[in-house]
Amino acid sequence: MVSSGFRNLLLKLGLPEGRLEVLEGKGGIEEDTFEGIRYVRFRDSARGFRRGTAVFEDGTVVLGFPHIKRIVQLKNGVKRIFKGKPFYVEEKVDGYNVRVVKVKGRILALTRGGFVCPFTTERILDFINEEFFRDYPNLVLVGEMAGPESPYLVEGPPYVKEDIQFFLFDIQEKGTGRSIPAEERYKLAEEYGIPQVEVFGLYDRSRIDELRELVDKLSEEKREGVVMKTPDMKRIAKYVTPYANINDIRIGSRIFFDLPGGYFMGRISRLAFHIAERRIRGEDFENYAKALGEALLKPLVESIEEVSQGHDVEETFRVRVKNVSTAHRMVNHFERLGLKIHIEDIEDLGNGYWRITFKRLYPDATREIRELWNGLAFVD
Amino acid sequence: MVSSGFRNLLLKLGLPEGRLEVLEGKGGIEEDTFEGIRYVRFRDSARGFRRGTAVFEDGTVVLGFPHIKRIVQLKNGVKRIFKGKPFYVEEKVDGYNVRVVKVKGRILALTRGGFVCPFTTERILDFINEEFFRDYPNLVLVGEMAGPESPYLVEGPPYVKEDIQFFLFDIQEKGTGRSIPAEERYKLAEEYGIPQVEVFGLYDRSRIDELRELVDKLSEEKREGVVMKTPDMKRIAKYVTPYANINDIRIGSRIFFDLPGGYFMGRISRLAFHIAERRIRGEDFENYAKALGEALLKPLVESIEEVSQGHDVEETFRVRVKNVSTAHRMVNHFERLGLKIHIEDIEDLGNGYWRITFKRLYPDATREIRELWNGLAFVD
Repeated sequence: MVSSGFRNLLLKLGLPEGRLEVLEGKGGIEEDTFEGIRYVRFRDSARGFRRGTAVFEDGTVVLGFPHIKRIVQLKNGVKRIFKGKPFYVEEKVDGYNVRVVKVKGRILALTRGGFVCPFTTERILDFINEEFFRDYPNLVLVGEMAGPESPYLVEGPPYVKEDIQFFLFDIQEKGTGRSIPAEERYKLAEEYGIPQVEVFGLYDRSRIDELRELVDKLSEEKREGVVMKTPDMKRIAKYVTPYANINDIRIGSRIFFDLPGGYFMGRISRLAFHIAERRIRGEDFENYAKALGEALLKPLVESIEEVSQGHDVEETFRVRVKNVSTAHRMVNHFERLGLKIHIEDIEDLGNGYWRITFKRLYPDATREIRELWNGLAFVD
Repeated sequence: MVSSGFRNLLLKLGLPEGRLEVLEGKGGIEEDTFEGIRYVRFRDSARGFRRGTAVFEDGTVVLGFPHIKRIVQLKNGVKRIFKGKPFYVEEKVDGYNVRVVKVKGRILALTRGGFVCPFTTERILDFINEEFFRDYPNLVLVGEMAGPESPYLVEGPPYVKEDIQFFLFDIQEKGTGRSIPAEERYKLAEEYGIPQVEVFGLYDRSRIDELRELVDKLSEEKREGVVMKTPDMKRIAKYVTPYANINDIRIGSRIFFDLPGGYFMGRISRLAFHIAERRIRGEDFENYAKALGEALLKPLVESIEEVSQGHDVEETFRVRVKNVSTAHRMVNHFERLGLKIHIEDIEDLGNGYWRITFKRLYPDATREIRELWNGLAFVD
């Protein structure tokens, strides 16, 4: 249910009354509060409001971040999307997507789903300069939060050695969700000292061999991939490295029974397309096959062994916060989402930060493994 | 729709009228004819009529063959299902399930779905002795048809070097679907010279180590697994070898995009349970990992390469028939099921048999690979 204030606001913003009622009926829209700031978030798309959109009480609309299209055949994908036109190639950083925005005088960080994230909101000013929003109150900084100490992902990119970092990759307008041109973004990031994803330069389809070499280099360096964008940000596509496909499988295999088959199937097929496009044969092929097999089997076998010894399937996360209460609010947030979280350790780092260690338990996956281990006979 | 004759027959057999109407409404029951013999087959379960049941015009009821429960932890599964009681261990043969029955003076072979299979019906008397049905008209022979020349499977067990063979593994009563005791079956098979699955003897849970050794031996010999049955046939469970899990993945990978994720996921997890139960480590583990990775990648990469060169994803089948018309009826049957089949070659073997080579095409999988290869950008 949405309160009457928000009802009127959404109608004024152009959401048809019938559509609003349908959304409310199926829980596609939810009202929430963050430190006294009220907002609704869209769990489904509706008209111009993409999934993940947040509308604040003052009328600020932060559109959901659109899903970037993927290609699995680099050469033909580049040809088909960009034709002869040039495009910037930027690093695809392995983290979680945040939209940073100033609302009612506060800098807030929204996750993909449209939640104001208490953790990211607390930490965001460690990475970006508030002055940017004084000068550009109407813009939204979109970036990836990535590193080994993240509340959402068990791993980060290899070059973030501790904690997390913010990497800007888009700047959008409030309300419209329109991206500013890439070069303007590069300039603003430079000017305000906002850390951004690595930009590998301007490519076009005639430089496909160099682009492939770049992908190989990123894969060797255990990086996730590339996002290609026309300077006007109108055409965007992503391509991930074989390393990332296998590494995602390795991470997922630990919680095998909690993930849909498509999680693994998609990554296996992307790897296969890479191998087919690049005509990988012989020892290099064998190495990929072995890495894939190990990524699928090893963590899954370990999970089975752990459950057989009475333990749970779980993942461990570490985060650094300025206030312990932020960690508790983070846990509350997860619990409201139905996750089972257990705080393991709270450690004073002595530099104004606390390190919180928490576990996410997977009761369904644990139960399934336990039943099967105990000899359950089942029809499949 | 079911004709009035069958309506009355089914009602007489105890199917409630309301249930019959619901079944008809959703296509859960279908009327068919095989060489003038009319029957209905159950595509859904209803009351005592299991999925795959066939009811013939003369009132003969051949119940659908029930799905045998699977265990993935051999030791605990055996303990849980059989407690301290003995059970026969028989080979699980990798083929397709057929029920052989005499109806109106004819020996017919039904597939799992309850179709009278023109191919199997033509060939079945090459393998079993018609006298059996003269003496036991009320019994149904249930077995696996397996070999390299099968219309349903691209591969057979290693010990069937050519053509197909029939392997009896159950004898059931018409009407009730009740299995006769295992030892009676062994005796009847012996008496009538009906080939049967290999019987490895009577085990109980105290001989789990020997059972594990048997599974290892079968896996080395590239055989599918074991089915364990109490002598009275009341408790039955199956366990497949790691070889079969990986080999199924290899066969499936060729038509990767035509199979649900669960096909691969189930087999990967069974392999992982085997590795965990048997504490497989070191080089043996590495070998499984590599075999799994290759099974997943190699045929899929080959399919991608073939499609990229303009070919289709396809599987080739060979069968031996006495009459070419049988092959045509087989193809018609497949086409009615919505499959796309192309006969490649018809060869006179000169010994009263024709060898038919046909291809099954996978247009959806082909289209998906072609689109992705051509650079399609998609949201996933």
